[in-house]
Amino acid sequence: MIKPRTPAGVMELLPAEQMTFQRLLDRIRSTFERFGFAPIETPVFELTDTLLTKSGGETERQVYFVQSTGALAEGKTPELALRFDLTVPLARYVAEHERELAFPFRRYQMQRVYRGERQQRGRFREFYQCDIDIIGKDQLSVRYDAELPAVIHAVFKALEIGSFTIQLNNRKLLRGFFNSLNLSDSEQQALILREIDKLDKRGAEAVMATLTGESFGLPATTVQTIMDFVGFRSTSREQALQQLQSLQGQDAELDEGIAELKLVIEQLNMLGVPESDYALNFSIARGLDYYTGTVYETLLDDHPGIGSICSGGRYEDLAGYYTKSKLPGVGISIGLTRLFYQLREAGLLPPSGSSTQVLLALMDERPESAAYNLRLASILRDAGINTETVFEFGKLAKQFKYADKAGIRFVAVVGDEERADGTVTLKDLQTQEQTQVQESQLVTYLQTAVQA
Amino acid sequence: MIKPRTPAGVMELLPAEQMTFQRLLDRIRSTFERFGFAPIETPVFELTDTLLTKSGGETERQVYFVQSTGALAEGKTPELALRFDLTVPLARYVAEHERELAFPFRRYQMQRVYRGERQQRGRFREFYQCDIDIIGKDQLSVRYDAELPAVIHAVFKALEIGSFTIQLNNRKLLRGFFNSLNLSDSEQQALILREIDKLDKRGAEAVMATLTGESFGLPATTVQTIMDFVGFRSTSREQALQQLQSLQGQDAELDEGIAELKLVIEQLNMLGVPESDYALNFSIARGLDYYTGTVYETLLDDHPGIGSICSGGRYEDLAGYYTKSKLPGVGISIGLTRLFYQLREAGLLPPSGSSTQVLLALMDERPESAAYNLRLASILRDAGINTETVFEFGKLAKQFKYADKAGIRFVAVVGDEERADGTVTLKDLQTQEQTQVQESQLVTYLQTAVQA
Repeated sequence: MIKPRTPAGVMELLPAEQMTFQRLLDRIRSTFERFGFAPIETPVFELTDTLLTKSGGETERQVYFVQSTGALAEGKTPELALRFDLTVPLARYVAEHERELAFPFRRYQMQRVYRGERQQRGRFREFYQCDIDIIGKDQLSVRYDAELPAVIHAVFKALEIGSFTIQLNNRKLLRGFFNSLNLSDSEQQALILREIDKLDKRGAEAVMATLTGESFGLPATTVQTIMDFVGFRSTSREQALQQLQSLQGQDAELDEGIAELKLVIEQLNMLGVPESDYALNFSIARGLDYYTGTVYETLLDDHPGIGSICSGGRYEDLAGYYTKSKLPGVGISIGLTRLFYQLREAGLLPPSGSSTQVLLALMDERPESAAYNLRLASILRDAGINTETVFEFGKLAKQFKYADKAGIRFVAVVGDEERADGTVTLKDLQTQEQTQVQESQLVTYLQTAVQA
Repeated sequence: MIKPRTPAGVMELLPAEQMTFQRLLDRIRSTFERFGFAPIETPVFELTDTLLTKSGGETERQVYFVQSTGALAEGKTPELALRFDLTVPLARYVAEHERELAFPFRRYQMQRVYRGERQQRGRFREFYQCDIDIIGKDQLSVRYDAELPAVIHAVFKALEIGSFTIQLNNRKLLRGFFNSLNLSDSEQQALILREIDKLDKRGAEAVMATLTGESFGLPATTVQTIMDFVGFRSTSREQALQQLQSLQGQDAELDEGIAELKLVIEQLNMLGVPESDYALNFSIARGLDYYTGTVYETLLDDHPGIGSICSGGRYEDLAGYYTKSKLPGVGISIGLTRLFYQLREAGLLPPSGSSTQVLLALMDERPESAAYNLRLASILRDAGINTETVFEFGKLAKQFKYADKAGIRFVAVVGDEERADGTVTLKDLQTQEQTQVQESQLVTYLQTAVQA
């Protein structure tokens, strides 16, 4: 006998939770489609050579390699590896199918990715990413940068997990700001931003001490200017635009970033995103080597500790390793497994009943009772009502207990009396109310009830 | 520069095909839910020890092993392996979560599985399986065996890929038949059935020669009886029931199989499955070691060469390796990747447009043009219409070409004239018709058009 268990670091759900998860996936997907994104799926494994072009260090150490039984026996180097994100597969996909795709290429992709993370509560080795990207050929208007926060907004409205704020920044603005302080070395900028990133954990004093200390050696006034700058959060659209205005004219790159952010904010207004749901946040940097323009993070207002639940930004060139074509893009990613885990921990998951709406109980073992239920089940299913029939006769109390455990809301009981009357006794396990419904009215009754 | 390519044996789709695939997945899923099945998902990898309990030989040789970078460097034996079907993970899942599940446990699972198949056209190393199973605790009424063909029927009606016939047989009936011929050794039965399975390929004469030949040594009359028996296909419900009746009274196990098949056929009638869509076929056996009662295969009437597109059956005990509980079940599986591939080859895929319904073209580079489109896009999206806006200005002809390539049906054009009039010029790329629609009527117009 073998103890049945899953590998460490995976999230396996019971059916009721899986339904909730599925509902989140469905809502994300339909929102992506609402904004004109098309689906793609890529294989779980890529050729090792293809996958590991770009990444060294950390990422490579977390890669899972895949080998067939035969290759393993022969001691070969693994030819395949599991994808660790959806960005590298997207780059490979776009480069491979370049001629067959229509540009700008708007794709969504919702699949699991794999990382050999250190074992730790809340860290996953297998997790869903829900990504969208818009890829241009040679160029891509900055107007697309404004479309993505509108998608983020629509997605989290649809998920109904509480109020949130989309944090906006721009890497050109960041670089320009540092240029204006005569800190134009991009490596130094990256190191300073890494320290800024620790503000929440270490506190302002400790960070300032580091930046004025030996390793950085920045003047205290410069550090104070940086701290004031990255501390900025806008509280209204008007204030955001004013702040951008006030920074203008110090550096060409800074001005470019300002212009882009302004356009994004103006467009968000036209797209109907309320000003309460987004803000400028000049501390957002997101991996200095990849993003080149607008960057996004998204925080739950009442649970900032969860961290960013949707992030992304603008990049210069998607697939330089695979094609000579220049493919600029902008994208975002939702790490749904981690989000689901944290929502569950915080008790924020929307309650979810079963997708099954009615259980037809079995009153006795006579064939005519089962036959009656079969006929009734067909009528309900044809009307679009998800219906389960009981075939294993047992005490009625046990059947109700089953429905309750499975999260099914209605139990329909038809005994001899009901059959003679042409009625159905319907119990609503949510309200504990019991109703006598005419069989001919049952479909309408249930359709109304489940839609309410 | 690295040549972008996928590993051999995977099916990667372009967006338009992916949408068709997604539509098939959606219809299968909603049908499964219509019959009261609940979703589960399991990790792509299982612990090697857990996965490889049962299977030796063929299956084991096709397994993909998974190793993190660290484990690979240390030369360890892989601790993880990719699932090669959804049945072993289901067994592990049910055993692991036994106390938390409600029985009979009705689950559906639609995920990809992995097999190191020999490289060959039409064979896949990564492919979707769409499975449902009903698992009882200690017992499971044979009535559930009749529910599954009703699900198969509803699924393939929903997929709209042509007429089909669900082939029914019963392993008890098969065994009982052989018993009645004094061929009661189950290994010998298996060997005979394996020869019978070759009927289509080798022809009746060759198979009969083998069975009467040295290795089997069966009398010619016995072989003729077997051939007559396995050649039976019912052409109506009445004839199926008559044939079952005529076999009765020769062997206890045969009689049990007959009673079960009769019940299945009677219930299919009550569930509204027309007699034209199922048939008895006494040659269906399906892996003699696993199934114990009813077995199913499904053939497309006009394309029998594709082989069974949905198969399954009744088994005694799901998870004997993981739990002492007796868990009888009945299940079916659709290999969707293979089915999709074959439908595509045969030109049988239902045509599928983009999920995006409207493209809002951009007439010029003035900000007010983009602004107008943004406002219009929000109105359309709020009304549930999947809408894409063009931000990269280019020739109108190019924008139409883009919509055509992406499979988007409607292109909306709003120039100065239209703006002054409060109208939208709408082109239907399906019919090539161009219509002038009042902006206030646009939502209703499009909703009607896309639903039609």
